[in-house]
Amino acid sequence: MALYVQKFGGTSVGSIERINAVADIVAKAKAEGHQVVVVSSAMSGETDRLINLAKEVQSPIDSREYSSMVSTGEQVAIALIAMALKARGLNAKSMLGHQVPITTSDDHKKARIQSVGKENINSLLESDVIPVIAGFQGVNAQGDVTTLGRGGSDTSAVAIAAALGADECQIYTDVDGVYTTDPRVVSRAKRLEQITFEEMLELASLGAKVLQIRSVEFAGKYNVPLRVLSSFNPGSGTLISYEGKPMEDALVSGIAFNRSEAKLTILGVPDTPGVAYQLLGPVSDAGIGIDMIIQNIAADGRTDFTFTVHRDEYQSAMELLQQIANKLGANEVVGDDHIVKISLVGVGMRSHAGIASTMFDVLGREGINIQMISTSEIKISVVVDEKYLELGVRTLHSAFGLDKEADEETDPL
Amino acid sequence: MALYVQKFGGTSVGSIERINAVADIVAKAKAEGHQVVVVSSAMSGETDRLINLAKEVQSPIDSREYSSMVSTGEQVAIALIAMALKARGLNAKSMLGHQVPITTSDDHKKARIQSVGKENINSLLESDVIPVIAGFQGVNAQGDVTTLGRGGSDTSAVAIAAALGADECQIYTDVDGVYTTDPRVVSRAKRLEQITFEEMLELASLGAKVLQIRSVEFAGKYNVPLRVLSSFNPGSGTLISYEGKPMEDALVSGIAFNRSEAKLTILGVPDTPGVAYQLLGPVSDAGIGIDMIIQNIAADGRTDFTFTVHRDEYQSAMELLQQIANKLGANEVVGDDHIVKISLVGVGMRSHAGIASTMFDVLGREGINIQMISTSEIKISVVVDEKYLELGVRTLHSAFGLDKEADEETDPL
Repeated sequence: MALYVQKFGGTSVGSIERINAVADIVAKAKAEGHQVVVVSSAMSGETDRLINLAKEVQSPIDSREYSSMVSTGEQVAIALIAMALKARGLNAKSMLGHQVPITTSDDHKKARIQSVGKENINSLLESDVIPVIAGFQGVNAQGDVTTLGRGGSDTSAVAIAAALGADECQIYTDVDGVYTTDPRVVSRAKRLEQITFEEMLELASLGAKVLQIRSVEFAGKYNVPLRVLSSFNPGSGTLISYEGKPMEDALVSGIAFNRSEAKLTILGVPDTPGVAYQLLGPVSDAGIGIDMIIQNIAADGRTDFTFTVHRDEYQSAMELLQQIANKLGANEVVGDDHIVKISLVGVGMRSHAGIASTMFDVLGREGINIQMISTSEIKISVVVDEKYLELGVRTLHSAFGLDKEADEETDPL
Repeated sequence: MALYVQKFGGTSVGSIERINAVADIVAKAKAEGHQVVVVSSAMSGETDRLINLAKEVQSPIDSREYSSMVSTGEQVAIALIAMALKARGLNAKSMLGHQVPITTSDDHKKARIQSVGKENINSLLESDVIPVIAGFQGVNAQGDVTTLGRGGSDTSAVAIAAALGADECQIYTDVDGVYTTDPRVVSRAKRLEQITFEEMLELASLGAKVLQIRSVEFAGKYNVPLRVLSSFNPGSGTLISYEGKPMEDALVSGIAFNRSEAKLTILGVPDTPGVAYQLLGPVSDAGIGIDMIIQNIAADGRTDFTFTVHRDEYQSAMELLQQIANKLGANEVVGDDHIVKISLVGVGMRSHAGIASTMFDVLGREGINIQMISTSEIKISVVVDEKYLELGVRTLHSAFGLDKEADEETDPL
């Protein structure tokens, strides 16, 4: 008998039909002899409906009242799930943030969880009652309702699983797992049975929007095995944990990419101590997010800096850099907003220096010119012209043995 | 400086436009130097929307989950009102049932208020913060959300006003006060400036659906002056209190009527002790509500009983009575479901025996035959053929001096 925290997202509880499907999933786990704690988001669309009401009344919206108001979305969902479970002859009880209690910091709209009381949950479990807990909400020291920020229900679920020492935190969503890459780009992308926290973090931050990044960090920190599953289709999903059993001996677990990149290069910057800060400080002060930063070795007392930003911020970054270039006496600023980033991710890379060379070889054979390279322990990213995105991802996917067999069955979305 | 509890019903907060109007009403009272505590119902339609969702999931609906779910309607409304007040530069804070706290009995869907904590409310008032409290909800000893039953927000407001010793509990609704009779029947019906609790109870139970009966009883018990006003039109409404200053010397305050009555008579019942119970016990056991009961003096050892029921229950009451008549050896059962009840209400009646005779005289002159008569301290009710309803009410309204002057301005709805 295992203890599972099962978390259901907005689309998974988006209608009465979906809520009944959720109750069936929970009932199945109970029938298999497991203990289950349910965590739910609001029915899809409800949070936006409430925020739009508030926007008509006040601007900016008072954050205490915002939290109290939008938290009702989860309150309704958990009551409906508890009813659906009772309609199936199971015993269940909804629990609001303050009833658990889930205590948080004071910051109403992006509160951080401080503690999860496990006594009330455990006493329900001991009486064979399924606790159905509101995600996304907590209570602060004043007894006010707080909210964790969008997507915070994943974090609620992980925190509850950590407090209870659950065997798994199962995140039910509308995709059936984490894929080797985006199935819309590579039709032979396959679902990963297992992946590490580190790999998931690299994949998530690179654009695979399956899980909220904070919840993955949290799960890693407290060593809570996470499983991503679909509430729409049966399947075992993808297990995210600390290595465990390497089911596949793959060097590369997945290929992520980002279409929204733009690069800027400032040429001939005097190579003096502190110059990197003089350059990037003002960019960051202007609120422009920087992704990759590359500085090559200096020649003749001058050096070049290249970095990438989100395409939406390309123009403002360009104007700012030109001012800085003048001030620093740099030669020139050049840029390109038609680039993309492709990244190989995999813990297997750590011990295999050959991955990078294989990657560059494969891309070179297809005539794809690499403009920038950046590496970390478990990731290699390259920047290429955007026209090569699909070709590059597909070729790498195949070269690193990620393609599924032609007769394997998958259901991408 | 007075302390007012201002309670707003569902139609008064039914849209963002209406919520802004509510904030204007509160702001006006603040500008006049008063302290204000706001109590609100859910936006109209919201409670029904939620109940319909629940009905799709479970039948009968679990009452604990029902309360937790439907209480979100008020939670949203109070957050929006607090935002609207803040948008007007006032300080305000929403308060849920457990935050006040308003403790109740355990009975989730029709909980009774046990106590209202005044410390948190008073500490807000002392800091010049307007408390905006969710009506209709409370918290039980287990920390669960409870609800008071439909219309319970009026009771919440009265209980809060009683706890705080407020100068007035102002019930804002979609009518601008209590009228001498239904303006749809008598165009010259006028708004009453003042009325007693007892009169209001008689009028409310007789069909003037302005206030929830329980809240009037509650207000009377704790001597909280109630004022019914419109949130749509300015005006002083109707003050409901213990006599106070008799502004009008009227003997009759208002005329109520009920169109949904039917009468049944069981003739020739043996006049033995306990026969009334043998007759009415089974009717009441069958869940049929009985309004008037009349027994005349016995003659030749036999007596007649007549009573009135709701028209919807006429057929089932008739069938049941025929069985009982057989059992008791009564002569016959007769009935009529085309009758109405007309009632004069007024504390002035207590000391004026002439009211009844005037009433019978006035009706007789119009050729209206009186079928049944029932009286209480401050009420006289007669049953007449339904075709005489409008004529009877109009004639009595005029005869007892209730008609407004032709040039008086009123706004019936």
